[in-house]
Amino acid sequence: MLRMLALFPFIAAISACSASLLSSSQQSTALTRTVVVDNLRSPWGIAFIDANTALITEKEGGLVIADLGSGETRSISGLPADLIDDIRSEVRFDNGGLFDIALDPNFAAEPFVYLSYAAKSDQGRTTKIIRARLEETSLEEAQTLLVADPFTEGEFFHYGGGLAFGDDGKLYVTIGERIYNERDNPALPIAQDPKDKRGKIYRLNKDGSAPEDNPDFGPNAAPGLFAMGIRAAQGIAVQPETGDIWFSEHGSRQGDEINRLAAGANYGWPIVTTGGYRNDDYTPPTLEGRDFTAPVWFWRQTVAPTGLAFYTGDAFPQWRNDLFVSGLSRGSFWRFNFENGVIVSVEELFVDDRIRSRDVAVAPDGALYMLTDTLLAPSPEGGLDYTGEAGGQLLRISPRKR
Amino acid sequence: MLRMLALFPFIAAISACSASLLSSSQQSTALTRTVVVDNLRSPWGIAFIDANTALITEKEGGLVIADLGSGETRSISGLPADLIDDIRSEVRFDNGGLFDIALDPNFAAEPFVYLSYAAKSDQGRTTKIIRARLEETSLEEAQTLLVADPFTEGEFFHYGGGLAFGDDGKLYVTIGERIYNERDNPALPIAQDPKDKRGKIYRLNKDGSAPEDNPDFGPNAAPGLFAMGIRAAQGIAVQPETGDIWFSEHGSRQGDEINRLAAGANYGWPIVTTGGYRNDDYTPPTLEGRDFTAPVWFWRQTVAPTGLAFYTGDAFPQWRNDLFVSGLSRGSFWRFNFENGVIVSVEELFVDDRIRSRDVAVAPDGALYMLTDTLLAPSPEGGLDYTGEAGGQLLRISPRKR
Repeated sequence: MLRMLALFPFIAAISACSASLLSSSQQSTALTRTVVVDNLRSPWGIAFIDANTALITEKEGGLVIADLGSGETRSISGLPADLIDDIRSEVRFDNGGLFDIALDPNFAAEPFVYLSYAAKSDQGRTTKIIRARLEETSLEEAQTLLVADPFTEGEFFHYGGGLAFGDDGKLYVTIGERIYNERDNPALPIAQDPKDKRGKIYRLNKDGSAPEDNPDFGPNAAPGLFAMGIRAAQGIAVQPETGDIWFSEHGSRQGDEINRLAAGANYGWPIVTTGGYRNDDYTPPTLEGRDFTAPVWFWRQTVAPTGLAFYTGDAFPQWRNDLFVSGLSRGSFWRFNFENGVIVSVEELFVDDRIRSRDVAVAPDGALYMLTDTLLAPSPEGGLDYTGEAGGQLLRISPRKR
Repeated sequence: MLRMLALFPFIAAISACSASLLSSSQQSTALTRTVVVDNLRSPWGIAFIDANTALITEKEGGLVIADLGSGETRSISGLPADLIDDIRSEVRFDNGGLFDIALDPNFAAEPFVYLSYAAKSDQGRTTKIIRARLEETSLEEAQTLLVADPFTEGEFFHYGGGLAFGDDGKLYVTIGERIYNERDNPALPIAQDPKDKRGKIYRLNKDGSAPEDNPDFGPNAAPGLFAMGIRAAQGIAVQPETGDIWFSEHGSRQGDEINRLAAGANYGWPIVTTGGYRNDDYTPPTLEGRDFTAPVWFWRQTVAPTGLAFYTGDAFPQWRNDLFVSGLSRGSFWRFNFENGVIVSVEELFVDDRIRSRDVAVAPDGALYMLTDTLLAPSPEGGLDYTGEAGGQLLRISPRKR
């Protein structure tokens, strides 16, 4: 992400007046954000046990259970031993840590939590999906559901890790291609190789096995493979109205996307992209006989979209069924207005407030929540940089009383 | 604009699915656009005589008076003889034609119309501001108020031409620097030279004379000069709540802006910009002792903002006092939500509908109107291009009945 932020050097071209340009608008917005849980360590994902209780993953290696009334948190023990702690990591640019969380659709009777994280071994690092039974504040009987082989060494980006249960009761998982530069691809690019588990989206049974009605990607394809051609997808969410599954994806140079998931689809990376490549002189290989699926939306600027959720609550009736998307870059938060399945307007909320929004979620009572990473501040080089000063927060978004 | 559209070649990288990506959403939007006047020839500006009658300028050299009930138009005669007709122009990339129109604030008693246009002479072309008395369907006793010297030859971009009367009864005028590439600037760049009339904003008395309370830009400054450092400003509008004046500006490579006008301000072009330069190796000169004023908003993608208006009607109570901005690139239409003078959210409406929006205006009865240029369609090179097929329209925007 530090490199991505460096894409905004032009802010430096503005005079001293830029400070006012970037001043916080949090206090003056028509929306109120109330801090519900504070001092989280780079929170990544959230799952609601009920309207008052949520499990929150922290990228820096923690899982907590939060009381949304008091804001108190308790640590959950029993996280896997091979989990990378992002902050402690000795590997440069390692984006690793604990990522997303999903609850079993039948959680009341089968209290399993599903987790994604960056795992390390003697061979390097990769993305892993596990499930475990939650007993009070500990995880028990952890099972590995997916290991996004191969383990690799070097610098580590784009683990992916988005988790969502579809209406079909299957677990959908996003896995990034885990390289920084498209030039580092083999002749058959990672995301285009059905045998390589990276750069894909999976559909799994709860025990990690592959459903029999998954699409066919050939005899040697990775088990559970559902779609390919993925660069760096993170967020994944179900659209309640339709049961469709949507996912966000980071572009390399612009080209951040919102996609609708389709069985067997190939989203094109790195053969086609809505943005540019890191290197202007990169020429992707020509691959015969592949059809690529275009995104439903792509931004023309860098947004770094992460978590996403369709709004189903009552607090904002005019926004019901709209898609909300968190963005890390500059701290942005987006609302997509759908009508008859088509995006007809796109609104950026909380503009220029520097709050890195990592995830957005709707609680069982219809409340809208935002999970924030850290604050940004102007860097000496003129872009925006992490402050490292403030912890992550769970914020409840409400209409302001007038 | 053709060159600007070429900035979007990455659309070509999308597969055949891009057609659906760009499909029209006009029929499915929560907003309805009703065609009020059709078959306009690249309309540029609009001024309402009353809620049922408007004067509309056509960039291709016409001025019409339109009945907003029947949609019928009549031509106004008496346009200046030195007006360039954009379509007939033999000069490559000439963006010339008839531009904006404003009515005298006391129009009922003093029926003057104020017009901006591209004028030609033996010495080349420039931007001119005139006023004339409207008698039925003819302009009488035209007076020249401003000639944005020098006349120049070559390719002609960025005439400017935005017109608005402030609450102070003065006429505010935007004039572009009228070159395509910042490299073509003299040692003291056009927009930074108070003697050069280009690249500036003016404040004039109704007869074109300079108000005595204008800011002081030195003894040889252009008469009426009010602000400088302008590249390619077009739209200019008064904010009813505050009386502040706002203007849009085209960036060179991204960096499209929304600015608040201040007496004596220098908006920095080409010394500083929120976007890039046409040439990566362009280094602006260092000018001592100048303070530059930053925009209130800049886009990180190309929008090509033109007309703008603050909404004061009743049809959309939740949008009252919001700023609407037309954009030519891709056809876009933007809403800025202000709270306590700060932009807190930004919404793009009618996304991906390809309708080039040239101007937005609020009629005396509070109705919201959009003036459209021409339709866009995918070009053989992969970007978007003019179709040349459909005429411009005046559209009334209303909430859809549900």
